[in-house]
Amino acid sequence: MVKKVVIIGGGAAGIDVLELLLRGKGDAEKMEITLLKKEREGFFSTCGLPFALQGRYSIKELNLFEPEFYRAQGIDFRTGTEVTSINLEEGYVHLDSGEDIRYDCLVIATGSKPFIPPIEGTNLEGVYTLSSREDGELLEAAMNAEETSNAFIIGAGWIGLQTAVAFSKKGIKTTVVGMFPYLLPSILDADMASIVKKWLDKDLAFMLGRRVDALRGEHRVKSVVVGSEEFPADIVLIAAGMRPTVDIAREAGIEMGESGGIVTDRALRVKKGKSYLANVYALGDCVEVIDAVTYRPRLSQLASTALIQARVVANKIRGISSSYSPCLSPTVATLSGLQIGSIGVITEVARRYGIAIKAGRAVKYTKARFFPERKLIIAKVLFEASTERLIGAQIIAEETVAERINELTLGIRAGITARDIWMRERCFDPSLTMVEDVIVDAALKAVGN
Amino acid sequence: MVKKVVIIGGGAAGIDVLELLLRGKGDAEKMEITLLKKEREGFFSTCGLPFALQGRYSIKELNLFEPEFYRAQGIDFRTGTEVTSINLEEGYVHLDSGEDIRYDCLVIATGSKPFIPPIEGTNLEGVYTLSSREDGELLEAAMNAEETSNAFIIGAGWIGLQTAVAFSKKGIKTTVVGMFPYLLPSILDADMASIVKKWLDKDLAFMLGRRVDALRGEHRVKSVVVGSEEFPADIVLIAAGMRPTVDIAREAGIEMGESGGIVTDRALRVKKGKSYLANVYALGDCVEVIDAVTYRPRLSQLASTALIQARVVANKIRGISSSYSPCLSPTVATLSGLQIGSIGVITEVARRYGIAIKAGRAVKYTKARFFPERKLIIAKVLFEASTERLIGAQIIAEETVAERINELTLGIRAGITARDIWMRERCFDPSLTMVEDVIVDAALKAVGN
Repeated sequence: MVKKVVIIGGGAAGIDVLELLLRGKGDAEKMEITLLKKEREGFFSTCGLPFALQGRYSIKELNLFEPEFYRAQGIDFRTGTEVTSINLEEGYVHLDSGEDIRYDCLVIATGSKPFIPPIEGTNLEGVYTLSSREDGELLEAAMNAEETSNAFIIGAGWIGLQTAVAFSKKGIKTTVVGMFPYLLPSILDADMASIVKKWLDKDLAFMLGRRVDALRGEHRVKSVVVGSEEFPADIVLIAAGMRPTVDIAREAGIEMGESGGIVTDRALRVKKGKSYLANVYALGDCVEVIDAVTYRPRLSQLASTALIQARVVANKIRGISSSYSPCLSPTVATLSGLQIGSIGVITEVARRYGIAIKAGRAVKYTKARFFPERKLIIAKVLFEASTERLIGAQIIAEETVAERINELTLGIRAGITARDIWMRERCFDPSLTMVEDVIVDAALKAVGN
Repeated sequence: MVKKVVIIGGGAAGIDVLELLLRGKGDAEKMEITLLKKEREGFFSTCGLPFALQGRYSIKELNLFEPEFYRAQGIDFRTGTEVTSINLEEGYVHLDSGEDIRYDCLVIATGSKPFIPPIEGTNLEGVYTLSSREDGELLEAAMNAEETSNAFIIGAGWIGLQTAVAFSKKGIKTTVVGMFPYLLPSILDADMASIVKKWLDKDLAFMLGRRVDALRGEHRVKSVVVGSEEFPADIVLIAAGMRPTVDIAREAGIEMGESGGIVTDRALRVKKGKSYLANVYALGDCVEVIDAVTYRPRLSQLASTALIQARVVANKIRGISSSYSPCLSPTVATLSGLQIGSIGVITEVARRYGIAIKAGRAVKYTKARFFPERKLIIAKVLFEASTERLIGAQIIAEETVAERINELTLGIRAGITARDIWMRERCFDPSLTMVEDVIVDAALKAVGN
């Protein structure tokens, strides 16, 4: 019997499931796969947009695969197609075209959309978000317009800051307004964030611990109101976080969690009433995960989270046992050449969830002291006070950050302690590492020598 | 009561113990510390010598601390001093000056010396080794001599290859002769080593699977004999491995292992007769370790191994519980900008010690496919066939290798399987990583999709 699989959403999450099913198709029972997405692209990397705006490559490079690529493999890959409702009882989805598509197995990967703060003027021309190819192209055109000389960014997270760097490279006077008193508040402690701010201060203006109260202008945005002050603005980017896109799921009676994402079990099956449905999965930006340190629900809107979830979903559809674990969300990004990474909990999250910590921070080099190309590296590590187990880390340097975050992700999973960090071998070559690593120093500072 | 600590040897191992004792001195009972070393320097980084020869900095930069630095901290730091014997029964060491120095606690860190193959002509002028500041200075002078146009390197390990790169940068025609049919045979499989060879082929000549039978010349070396052929050579570097320096330990009745290194227990205490001595420790290049995958004895002559051992020895001397574990010896180095790393067992070692393996190799990029600065990365992973647990990895790329080796070191320690690698989160930023990492692909190839 042919199994009919329907995937709603063609962002990273939906496409990952599709690709894993295609790779494994030979082994599994025959399937008929339909992917339904609103956008017109095949597989487009939105993660790559900020760098395109920074001029590292053109936006069209991010079109990784055309719809035809999937169609040629027998997939019913539909773009420009919106699902307006799901009928869980009878097992079909309803399209904006009026068509119904039956499924044996449904995958909800509806993603997320930018949160628009409830202030006056967000619908003016010149006000942008950045979460799709179309957004990117509009923003790029606005950046390149001659009359653009003042930009405001609402939000001091990754997307806001990376786009701010792009604006500033274009010579646009750029101000970042953040509600928190420091940058990247969801992944950094204040002391670490201040290092990032210092790095960016030469190129960007910041208004932190403040909020935009209104956008003003006729048709086009002209100014930004912050408290009692008004500042000229030719473009405004709203980068105040992404909200799960869950309307059709909610309307179908699927349960939402306290984070606003879809609740799932360890097989990533959605919940309706008292039970998890056997044949309906959800993954990606639209689902709620369980945090691997606090064991409380939250969102993890990362392409890397979607990929791991896709492996579970694709396996389940293929009949292979698999289950999804609490989530650590290792994250890394670059800002003007500075790499910033974070894993596990930050101090504020530990406090909020009742975890007493021992924290240590150290500054060293990425290479031997005598090596001319060495760079400074700053690491902060957090241990659970009672067990001295690693539960979080933040690292800032011009190199080696991503791989260190991956190492510490594994470390948290493996339950390593400060002492394990101290007694563990690390490779040494003076052109690549220090014999005594910054992480070791930070761990020692946390728990005492 | 003041405890009298005597350290024999002032390489990385001896100095590491000294520095850890100094750092912890406040907590511990009072000590009187004497360090005895033959060389004239305080703390000199021999690991940094190949890069000095490559012109990255001058040899004198590697003089990290002068003897006065330690003397000012109350250490009896004696350079140019040779220990000629150890009296374990009465607890003193005898110096070449005739003096005896009593100890309560002895640390043997006598290091290693270059192995000189038993062939004719190794004592000719123009024949060098590279394991000390003096060696480095002599070799640098020889490299820079106008008449030097042909160099031969005996040995295709790290020291041989890194020095060969230095010679070649100077415009010297350089030939590396290696007994094994491929490069770096102690840390790479043949397939991975061939990638390194291809990278170096443009600058170096290789004679692999062959051995030098004699060095010829009057006073000064003139030629190198390999089989029936004779080649002109103005300088010859012997880099055929390092042998533990254990003469005085052996003469004192301390037991040596099958690897030629000093046998120790998990407290790194030496063995005499049937028991381990309570107050005599050994560490560094002169000791034998237990391999963490094969559980058989071997050497681990790395500065990073010495550092971990020093932590155990310094703790024990300070009365803090500590024990040394079987050793993984993560290793990394650069050759002409190519980073090569290895951890755990290679295929040949697994075979030799009866471990059936599943191996997989993959080639991907270090950054997203669409990112212009991406570099190729090649990874090979080895799993124990029966458990699919990671037991070895080899990685080659122009970036990110050292940190990946550190991650996989932790992975082997934590007992991760191929499936764990597949289902584990990794951080993603297109400018720094691929969303699906090369290690994941290699693991899947090893165990099947």
